[in-house]
Amino acid sequence: MATYVFGHTNPDSDSIIGAISLSYLKNQLGEECIPTRQGDISAETQFILDRFNYTDKAPELKTSVAGESVYLIDFSDKAQAPKDIEEATILGIVDHHKLGDLTTDTPLECWIRPIGCSNTVVKQMFDFYNVEIPKDIAGMMMCAILSDTVIFRSPTCTKEDTKAVKELSEICGIEDYKQLAMDMFIAKSAVEGASARELNTRDYKEFDMNGVKVGIGQLEMVDISVLEPRIEELMADMQKMKEEGGLHTVLILLTDIIKEGSQLLVASDDESKIEAAFGKSLENSQAWLDGVLSRKKQVVPFVQPQFK
Amino acid sequence: MATYVFGHTNPDSDSIIGAISLSYLKNQLGEECIPTRQGDISAETQFILDRFNYTDKAPELKTSVAGESVYLIDFSDKAQAPKDIEEATILGIVDHHKLGDLTTDTPLECWIRPIGCSNTVVKQMFDFYNVEIPKDIAGMMMCAILSDTVIFRSPTCTKEDTKAVKELSEICGIEDYKQLAMDMFIAKSAVEGASARELNTRDYKEFDMNGVKVGIGQLEMVDISVLEPRIEELMADMQKMKEEGGLHTVLILLTDIIKEGSQLLVASDDESKIEAAFGKSLENSQAWLDGVLSRKKQVVPFVQPQFK
Repeated sequence: MATYVFGHTNPDSDSIIGAISLSYLKNQLGEECIPTRQGDISAETQFILDRFNYTDKAPELKTSVAGESVYLIDFSDKAQAPKDIEEATILGIVDHHKLGDLTTDTPLECWIRPIGCSNTVVKQMFDFYNVEIPKDIAGMMMCAILSDTVIFRSPTCTKEDTKAVKELSEICGIEDYKQLAMDMFIAKSAVEGASARELNTRDYKEFDMNGVKVGIGQLEMVDISVLEPRIEELMADMQKMKEEGGLHTVLILLTDIIKEGSQLLVASDDESKIEAAFGKSLENSQAWLDGVLSRKKQVVPFVQPQFK
Repeated sequence: MATYVFGHTNPDSDSIIGAISLSYLKNQLGEECIPTRQGDISAETQFILDRFNYTDKAPELKTSVAGESVYLIDFSDKAQAPKDIEEATILGIVDHHKLGDLTTDTPLECWIRPIGCSNTVVKQMFDFYNVEIPKDIAGMMMCAILSDTVIFRSPTCTKEDTKAVKELSEICGIEDYKQLAMDMFIAKSAVEGASARELNTRDYKEFDMNGVKVGIGQLEMVDISVLEPRIEELMADMQKMKEEGGLHTVLILLTDIIKEGSQLLVASDDESKIEAAFGKSLENSQAWLDGVLSRKKQVVPFVQPQFK
């Protein structure tokens, strides 16, 4: 029986490419694995799949896993898992986030590292098992790492991530990976024709913070000023998301990768918690967070203690 | 500021030796780490420390970790952690059990594998980082693996464990490691002068099974018949443990490593759950479980689903 390998809900490139790269590794090691996904493929991920002619082999949608064996990549929270995850057998977790609330009944394999990208962890696994990475998968893994580390600018980026990108660029034969990454971020920045809900949930995760639900979305753009005319519309939709989902707070980060900071938009039952988290007053439920590029390292760890 | 490295409450050899071996590795990698322990050193562990002249350098007792940075070895459950673990920063977990209920606010390092011993995982970490293992630490790690795998007889034992023992035996220069292991198990089997409570809690862990507390202890012996005259006394004490600790069930396994099976002793609010777990009737709250050597693999996964 095959094992399914997938990333979190609202999959980003790390989740989709990680499902592909980890499945490939496991298959080489003799475990039959199938990469799947829990949601739509983003414009950024589609750019990567197209670039490496992998669109036809993209992971299939699978949102129910009862009775299956699974490997998880890029998350360890129930809130980001299929609803029936507790009826599945988790064989392993490959991740680079804080440790979430999933538990297992049986021993498992966890490769979790405090580094910039899950695909860097997968690269280390390839090295550990001495398995060769095909050119196309190496190129996609490289893109996933460049995306998660915002081309090495994110504070989450470690020397292991830069090392992995360099080694992967040699394998896939792409020297000018920074140009490729910028093209990828331009593809990611496209907002024309997208509804407010599509933008708010493009890279959106919900967290259980001590029993309180908090949703945090992020739009990484090469220039966030194109969104200025739409901020009111985005914020009205955030209110709706908060009510529909029974959330305490919805945060959206409009992250400008050139200016290296984020415009924070807030819909919350208690804005003072968010002000306390960042030591900053909100104006019209907004604030500019200079230098903030990483939800994981610069947002979640500051918001979470407010709900203790 | 130093980081503390420790195993679970009621530390076994894997927890004590793992604290030593993981601290040593981290120190070599430039992270100042201090091995500690949450409880007394067992007769088996003392045998190992004596054998490798390490008694003077044994981990110090430390049961409070608020405000500290820590690495955990051989567990990931709150019930097996210091009471104030949530006020500490967990930098990483090295383990070989099911994934427990500890969570973190920040990204961390997890090396968790479905294999026989945490020290086998530490051995893999030494290899990954290409750090040499000193002879004495190699010998102690070897003993910890031989203990956890019951000299390769436990169903938890994998080829990674046997490989690690072979490599460690070469490093420490002990060829006849099976004889050393048998001497270790004889040291472990000593029961003279020990009270019922000391025996019941010698290797005892409490589990939170869906909100219900279940304690499971194990005595690994080269011959359990020496305990026959004391079984009534042990069972009376298990009832006391159950009441004092507000537990639903206390199980003690008297494991005979030569006969390769365990005499199960039960104190429970509902014996039928235990009978269902093992598909076996209890007689006088006891049953012989043939082939059962591993609490982790042959007991916990069968008991846990009874409390869903």
